Amino acid sequence: MKAYKNMSRDELLTLKESLEKQFKEEEAKGLSMNMARGKPGVSQLMLSMPMLDCINSESDMNTILGNDTRNYGDLDGIGECRQLMADMMEVEKDNVIVCGNSSLNIMYDTISRSMTLGVNGSTPWCKLDKVKFLCPVPGYDRHFKITELFGIEMINIPLKEDGPDMDLVEEYVNNDAAVKGIWCVPKYANPTGISYSDEVIKRFANLKPKAEDFRIFWDNAYCIHHIYDDVQDEILNILEECEKAGNPNMVYMFASTSKVTFPGSGVSAIATSKENMDYILKQMTVQTIGHDKINQLRHVRFFKNIDGLKDHMKKHGDILRPKFEAVLEILDSELAGLEIGSWVKPRGGYFVSFDAMPGCAKAIVEKCKQLGVVLTGAGATYPYGKDPQDSNIRIAPSFPTPEEMVEATKIFVLCVKLASVEKLLQQ
Amino acid sequence: MKAYKNMSRDELLTLKESLEKQFKEEEAKGLSMNMARGKPGVSQLMLSMPMLDCINSESDMNTILGNDTRNYGDLDGIGECRQLMADMMEVEKDNVIVCGNSSLNIMYDTISRSMTLGVNGSTPWCKLDKVKFLCPVPGYDRHFKITELFGIEMINIPLKEDGPDMDLVEEYVNNDAAVKGIWCVPKYANPTGISYSDEVIKRFANLKPKAEDFRIFWDNAYCIHHIYDDVQDEILNILEECEKAGNPNMVYMFASTSKVTFPGSGVSAIATSKENMDYILKQMTVQTIGHDKINQLRHVRFFKNIDGLKDHMKKHGDILRPKFEAVLEILDSELAGLEIGSWVKPRGGYFVSFDAMPGCAKAIVEKCKQLGVVLTGAGATYPYGKDPQDSNIRIAPSFPTPEEMVEATKIFVLCVKLASVEKLLQQ
Repeated sequence: MKAYKNMSRDELLTLKESLEKQFKEEEAKGLSMNMARGKPGVSQLMLSMPMLDCINSESDMNTILGNDTRNYGDLDGIGECRQLMADMMEVEKDNVIVCGNSSLNIMYDTISRSMTLGVNGSTPWCKLDKVKFLCPVPGYDRHFKITELFGIEMINIPLKEDGPDMDLVEEYVNNDAAVKGIWCVPKYANPTGISYSDEVIKRFANLKPKAEDFRIFWDNAYCIHHIYDDVQDEILNILEECEKAGNPNMVYMFASTSKVTFPGSGVSAIATSKENMDYILKQMTVQTIGHDKINQLRHVRFFKNIDGLKDHMKKHGDILRPKFEAVLEILDSELAGLEIGSWVKPRGGYFVSFDAMPGCAKAIVEKCKQLGVVLTGAGATYPYGKDPQDSNIRIAPSFPTPEEMVEATKIFVLCVKLASVEKLLQQ
Repeated sequence: MKAYKNMSRDELLTLKESLEKQFKEEEAKGLSMNMARGKPGVSQLMLSMPMLDCINSESDMNTILGNDTRNYGDLDGIGECRQLMADMMEVEKDNVIVCGNSSLNIMYDTISRSMTLGVNGSTPWCKLDKVKFLCPVPGYDRHFKITELFGIEMINIPLKEDGPDMDLVEEYVNNDAAVKGIWCVPKYANPTGISYSDEVIKRFANLKPKAEDFRIFWDNAYCIHHIYDDVQDEILNILEECEKAGNPNMVYMFASTSKVTFPGSGVSAIATSKENMDYILKQMTVQTIGHDKINQLRHVRFFKNIDGLKDHMKKHGDILRPKFEAVLEILDSELAGLEIGSWVKPRGGYFVSFDAMPGCAKAIVEKCKQLGVVLTGAGATYPYGKDPQDSNIRIAPSFPTPEEMVEATKIFVLCVKLASVEKLLQQ
């Protein structure tokens, strides 16, 4: 394979002609495929259908402690579900509040509460002139949308292979009192798939924040979402590390079963220090009559315990693996050596992150769209939707079938090639 | 029956002695009963158990439009559940967003959104020096807790037999730009059980708010919660009336199935103008991945339509009626003519509201507690927990069995008598 950048103008023009011909052929097919969102495929949803039989009209509806899940009560979640989510998040049950169907909603509420009511008694953020958040990039678009909505200034922090650039994180957090938080997906990061190293996590735990109300938003979205049985990432327990470092209140951890059971009908949880929990519960008791305890019971009856949960996740891995491999094989065979893009091979999570030649991401996404393949909008993985390099593209292989995935990825590489050639010819 | 106020001091002292003897006898029994919260009884919960069979592993999980309820999507709720909730609230489907399990949570979020993001583009309330809410009293404690949490100043408005004192409401709303909202339970009000008259509702719709971001928080919590088959309250449609009056955006209506199916595992909804909905959805799309659509489908499959819902509510009424009647019969037979309290006979809802002699409510609640009968805290039906007359007590007859209800009410009237005698002797 000859790197595109080493081709002569004539070679590029010839290549362009051939790629354009392929493009027209694909266009004529009128395909329609979606690789935009981390949406479980139908075969994954089928795995959890038996859960719907776990609670029926004959069921004992009481918790182990004898509380009736059908009635008001248990604001922080039923005990057995708190235990299950604690085991999933690798924390203690006493540090867990089980919430509704969406961990995003907990994150939103956490920011919203900080805006109006402050953090454990601090000045409400809405009363401050300036509030800033650090955003490791590329990252999760929906995190950035929350901070954007509340007018919080977002600062890009490069995400490296072992986690965020900690020199930069320390510089900001330890010196700027306006920096109130950082968005993290520490395991199988969205979108790059990397996991934070022990060193990075220890540096997080040992931050000396200028702002007492600085918090790490630790979105452990993919804590048990491995693709392989044999090669799995493990990360340090941030709650423990923060406690050890004398920063017990510095972190909120979030997780859900949205990509374990059903998106929209799962359960979510927040894990944090007792002091943080007390402050949260004081607000929650005003906000809601409590979350859906029958659905919590349904989850517990289905999985029984963490082993049941882990067995279940293996089945998800078995379904996802071929889809990821299809994407990665095609990227390897079609693009290796061309020097027009790079990508990481993730061991878990929901995405393959692709870095195109600078200035090409938007063009690639647009071309794919013309051929009927919808990708996450270019720039979405950056705050304000602005990728300064116009380079990163997030590929979500979970929803299409493996066959569709092959076809869609072939179209993707075609568009990468064509956009890259066009870019080089402009230079 | 001789009115207590007409008794001589000697008569009162003799009465007191006899009541104290009864009190000691009751105290010795060591009872434990709870009339504190509007909590459905177990027999009511049993009515909805078949709903849990409506969705199982063999079910078709698609909506009528073919959307998979198990996956992401349908942020505003599945179409058939929007229709069901619209019919329940007597509004159009296009004006309804179906949310999670708690209408209180929607109200909280609505206030919280107004605080941080304003109302349809207005200045966020947190940026204003002063925000005020009108609170018809006695009212629902959890409404007041929300506005209290956000530091909103609450102004008591007397609730009369046909609704709030509208002269006062008009005076505040039409002249004070800091007045941004009013809490209403228009049908079978919590706690008095009254319903707003057509005239009151028309006056609401024709308000000329000084503040463009003034909103009526219309908590239609008991819209289909009748106790009797034959005598039922009907109220005017506030959305229609506001539209007619040229105030289409002035009202948010809320409802849920918490007291229809299961508290905590029901569905809730907000009904409002399209313009309001658009603003809400713009925020909701950042806040959550959507609500539990499987549970929405479960509700629709169980009730099928509004007729199914209404039939179901008749069964609730059949269970609640004897409990309400037990309370009312004992109040009538034991207290009529004594002039130490008054009460309304509600035709729906969840409460019997009792007005004791001024200065007696706290003492009555405390005495009941000594005898093992827990009532809603005195004052809870007023903002800041402060009943200026120390008079109102909310009785919730739903949770105890009818037999327990008889026993608890007998204890209640004993405590009313004793507290009243003590009060009169102090004067």
